Amino acid sequence: MQALWLEKQKTKWRTDLPLPQQEGQALIKVRLAGICGTDLEMTRGYYPFTGIPGHEFVGEVVANAPAEWIGKRVVGEINLTCGNCHACQTGSPTHCENRSVLGILGKDGVFAEYASLPLANLHLVPDDVPDEMAVFTEPLAAALEINQQTHIQPSQRILLVGAGRLGLLTAQTLALTGADLQVLARYPRQIEILHNQGIATIREEEIRPRAYDVVVEATGSAAGFALAQKALRPRGTLALKSTYAGNLTLNMSALVVDEIQLIGSRCGPFAPALRLMQSRRVNPLPLIAAEFPLNQAAQALEQAGQRGMLKVLLRNGG
Amino acid sequence: MQALWLEKQKTKWRTDLPLPQQEGQALIKVRLAGICGTDLEMTRGYYPFTGIPGHEFVGEVVANAPAEWIGKRVVGEINLTCGNCHACQTGSPTHCENRSVLGILGKDGVFAEYASLPLANLHLVPDDVPDEMAVFTEPLAAALEINQQTHIQPSQRILLVGAGRLGLLTAQTLALTGADLQVLARYPRQIEILHNQGIATIREEEIRPRAYDVVVEATGSAAGFALAQKALRPRGTLALKSTYAGNLTLNMSALVVDEIQLIGSRCGPFAPALRLMQSRRVNPLPLIAAEFPLNQAAQALEQAGQRGMLKVLLRNGG
Repeated sequence: MQALWLEKQKTKWRTDLPLPQQEGQALIKVRLAGICGTDLEMTRGYYPFTGIPGHEFVGEVVANAPAEWIGKRVVGEINLTCGNCHACQTGSPTHCENRSVLGILGKDGVFAEYASLPLANLHLVPDDVPDEMAVFTEPLAAALEINQQTHIQPSQRILLVGAGRLGLLTAQTLALTGADLQVLARYPRQIEILHNQGIATIREEEIRPRAYDVVVEATGSAAGFALAQKALRPRGTLALKSTYAGNLTLNMSALVVDEIQLIGSRCGPFAPALRLMQSRRVNPLPLIAAEFPLNQAAQALEQAGQRGMLKVLLRNGG
Repeated sequence: MQALWLEKQKTKWRTDLPLPQQEGQALIKVRLAGICGTDLEMTRGYYPFTGIPGHEFVGEVVANAPAEWIGKRVVGEINLTCGNCHACQTGSPTHCENRSVLGILGKDGVFAEYASLPLANLHLVPDDVPDEMAVFTEPLAAALEINQQTHIQPSQRILLVGAGRLGLLTAQTLALTGADLQVLARYPRQIEILHNQGIATIREEEIRPRAYDVVVEATGSAAGFALAQKALRPRGTLALKSTYAGNLTLNMSALVVDEIQLIGSRCGPFAPALRLMQSRRVNPLPLIAAEFPLNQAAQALEQAGQRGMLKVLLRNGG
């Protein structure tokens, strides 16, 4: 089959790859895939991955699955878990100690004609959720992970720092709480999308220090973190929704004195993400910036890497 | 001025009442008022209230207020607080020990041409929230109080028992969490509204016992409570969103053994209710069942008291 191949931070389009066939995993024909910041960071050497990248997708089950699954549209959780370790046995399978991660760690991903995943990872896509929405299930679930981890009260003040691909989804999931949300957005298109969805934006110089009950950092930059920490009130919650390249130097004493709760936030629940798109309480479609045919994945990655670029999609087949 | 007057459970339309003039309270011309279950219970003797009933409204500030408030559309919090008691001083003003409550306790309400409230109780209504939405601010805030009190996680299963006036608003605020929500609704119109909003309904015989993480009881009936308790899982949360006429006999040991968290829930935060309507994340308009001119308030109350009747509104002026 054909797929994008990543090796030593270089990508190339290969047409000589075997179909992914693993014991106990359904074969899935990829319909649409999305490019995420993590994919870009892998091409920049942040993760040492060799293989087919890509983890955001919607596809169709075509083989190696019970008859009732064949032909069904699915999205898939990206953590392949052992089921036996302490994390798996105590309700935290996304933290499985022996996990592989689709297109990120020890498991070929979805920038390919076909991919494979265990049935347990798959979620059926409701008929009224089109492919262009379903492909956002994974990042929307990640955005929802904040609501899963933290009790955000409707009466609270929330600052979201950053309005990129993940930030704009997080803005929508935070807005659902009814809280007084303000988003620090940099680019005109981000601000336009937010305002169209009735979400308030703020400029950096308008942010009042120690004023927010919850601050969500979604830039993955040291400057973003510093700004987030400054805006948070004592006893507030600081949720980290992006990974940081390299180390970050923190004033830990300030966290202690102010009794700050710091929460790292990664993968989230798929089922509610699908529910919220099905009922149109979340609409990711405005985030789509460009679409490429799958065999132009390298060019798509390049475009996705441009500053302020939102979601770039890859479509498999005509 | 003219208003509906309640005395010894009887209502009459009076045209001889003075304008409400209280020190430190803005005079408000009522534009639209809503009839709630509590109003009906007062006419049935559940609360011993003499005066003008009604507490759901949107109006216009016309006097006894700083110039910048005059002519502005407002909604108003219903608890008039002392500011000095322990509850007021510890951030729980809706529990003020010396409170009066608009149209319910020691304070004339809004089924009248004019009403009065302290400025501190008022919230400006954004231009793009029409009167027909704004009049739902108080009950929507009450629905949101559950999200304020309880951390509902997107991955949880929630059962809402009851889909009346308050239940249908609660269904919308619970659906925003992304949780797997099922609503036990009795009447076809309730089911139709819920399905139009992408919210699932369930029949009583389909409810699995001990299966729900959170159950919200919004019927105010003993049967509803029993059903709610049966559906809740051990260590689950049971939120009581309706008042109960008379006493309820509980199996308290079952609550203890199963470590159930029982939460009474009353008034909620206005600002997020307005935000959610302004951004159309909540739309109360389908709940409007009928509208009467203010001077037909008695007939309106009668209609509102019919089984399965949703929101009946009273309009002041032409």
